[in-house]
Amino acid sequence: MPNKKSHSSALHEKAGISPPEIISAAVVKNIQQFRKTQPSSTELVNGILEGNITALSRAITLVESTNPDHLAKANEVINACLSHANKSVRIGITGVPGVGKSTFIEAFGKYLTSLGKKVAVLAVDPSSTISHGSILGDKTRMEELVKDPNAYIRPSASGETLGGVARKTRETITLCEACGFDTIIIETVGVGQSETAVHSMVDFFLLLKIAGAGDELQGIKRGIMEMADAIVINKADGDNIKKAKLAKTEFNRALHLFPAKKSGWIPTTATCSAVTHEGIPEVWETIEKFLKLTKSNSYFDTKRAEQNEYWMLETINEQLKLNFFNNPDIQKLMDLTKKAVQNDETSPFAAAQLLLEKYFKE
Amino acid sequence: MPNKKSHSSALHEKAGISPPEIISAAVVKNIQQFRKTQPSSTELVNGILEGNITALSRAITLVESTNPDHLAKANEVINACLSHANKSVRIGITGVPGVGKSTFIEAFGKYLTSLGKKVAVLAVDPSSTISHGSILGDKTRMEELVKDPNAYIRPSASGETLGGVARKTRETITLCEACGFDTIIIETVGVGQSETAVHSMVDFFLLLKIAGAGDELQGIKRGIMEMADAIVINKADGDNIKKAKLAKTEFNRALHLFPAKKSGWIPTTATCSAVTHEGIPEVWETIEKFLKLTKSNSYFDTKRAEQNEYWMLETINEQLKLNFFNNPDIQKLMDLTKKAVQNDETSPFAAAQLLLEKYFKE
Repeated sequence: MPNKKSHSSALHEKAGISPPEIISAAVVKNIQQFRKTQPSSTELVNGILEGNITALSRAITLVESTNPDHLAKANEVINACLSHANKSVRIGITGVPGVGKSTFIEAFGKYLTSLGKKVAVLAVDPSSTISHGSILGDKTRMEELVKDPNAYIRPSASGETLGGVARKTRETITLCEACGFDTIIIETVGVGQSETAVHSMVDFFLLLKIAGAGDELQGIKRGIMEMADAIVINKADGDNIKKAKLAKTEFNRALHLFPAKKSGWIPTTATCSAVTHEGIPEVWETIEKFLKLTKSNSYFDTKRAEQNEYWMLETINEQLKLNFFNNPDIQKLMDLTKKAVQNDETSPFAAAQLLLEKYFKE
Repeated sequence: MPNKKSHSSALHEKAGISPPEIISAAVVKNIQQFRKTQPSSTELVNGILEGNITALSRAITLVESTNPDHLAKANEVINACLSHANKSVRIGITGVPGVGKSTFIEAFGKYLTSLGKKVAVLAVDPSSTISHGSILGDKTRMEELVKDPNAYIRPSASGETLGGVARKTRETITLCEACGFDTIIIETVGVGQSETAVHSMVDFFLLLKIAGAGDELQGIKRGIMEMADAIVINKADGDNIKKAKLAKTEFNRALHLFPAKKSGWIPTTATCSAVTHEGIPEVWETIEKFLKLTKSNSYFDTKRAEQNEYWMLETINEQLKLNFFNNPDIQKLMDLTKKAVQNDETSPFAAAQLLLEKYFKE
């Protein structure tokens, strides 16, 4: 389409101004704007410590970036924020889709801000890589909380691996805490490995359930129940109240079959309604009791130190694997090797040895 | 003690023979003997395929060696054995100490050899690193089976990591199968992570229990119950029979709370007595039913292919970690870094980044 000139290009001709000049001016403006949006790490840290939400959001964007320069800057910001963090309580909330996580977090979060708390809501969503954020992605699901000046909601980071997504959320916690948020809620969906990742970054782990028609225990992963510090049966309103109370009893019995927790805490069960707000204050009371116990028996601090070490080692392990499996020579060999191993043409160990020799020779 | 000559040295003087000559002859003899005990990999493979137990034991010793030359030779032997392996059934047996694993395996193994089967009994023992083999270490606990020409018992390998110990056992399975053993029993103790490792190398996973005084479910790790294809309550003899039957009912109810298995198999419960041999043939019947089902729905082959891939990736991950954490420069920095991370002086991610940069720069 040689004759189809753009509207602005035609304008330039009419005005007798050469298009390159105008473009150049636009580029300069862009660069200026770009510079404006790229504050230094000191500016970011100062902003965060003053409670500036824009600075917080920008720093989180750096954390989530895959650009190596951004990574270095993000590490600077996080390290500077560290001594200002750590005064919060970190609460993990999980539950399968349909259990009412968003409405619960909205009701719970509003209750917390009414107590004068500053609440940050983050997410670890293993599906976010594909859907670009399926939980918390739609902030309108928390209409009230999103308007609350004492609440900050950030959708899940996306990434190639769950480990990467979880790491970014773990780093975001530090930034939110330095920004003055004293209650961090981390939402995750009740399937797969994401609970383990969230459990490794929170002080208190809450499993949200609803009363079903039949056997309440059917289909829950035992590992998730084992992690729970409390099981809360949501949607205990209207016709559902009786069923919810029955479910509570059944979960309570099941919880007692588990070995005692290192924290000394005995997991609790409760019912609540995110609609009527019944039971919501009691959830917070439970968490306060938990904090009192674990701070007095020093479990709280011990666990946080262990979690820090865990995240250091996890980050190392993940980077070692990424470096290996993203190596172009390894990638070339991998499919062939996997097939040979699956078909018993070579042993898994000889195959691994071959790939490792190739990798370390370079 | 300059005047204390050895008896033989005094003899040499009396006989007028210079000691060095004799020593030299002894060394030559030693070397000859050493060569005799170091068959080539081809000799080992031929021996194994002929069902020679000495060749099998020597090859397993190579697998368990930490000498890199032995590793290469072990891989050669395993690869040559691969096409001759895989006709067996691999059975994992777990249970806490005191449940009677040894007596059960002895009774079960004897029953299998009476059916004309060739039975190899291996172990994955996470404590073997410290105790140098606490389970199966004392072969006298299986007095009858150890004398059986159709049975082969090998204690757990020892190693620095559970992953390493498990890998060696996984490799030993291939050698045993090539040597003609058609039923491989892998014992592990019912604590910690070793069950997961064993579960990843067997076709059928059996959880051994005894009837207790009270709540049968108390204290079992849910993950282990979730892996079980059958729960067998041992020591169902004498006064114990009634209690064992009650326990069976209780376990049966608990098992039905778990999600359906990919294999299509519904886990079973049974009672048995390793003393009276009651219920032992039924355990084998159950395994036969399992094999019939999973071979007809192709789960058996799919799972084995998946297990092969799993062991390749696990070996790679373990070697990557070992290479990193055994690096002298990393080791020098590690303690300092861990402390800084635990005390919130640096973030887990910045610390990991620092160590990784150091590692990859070399």
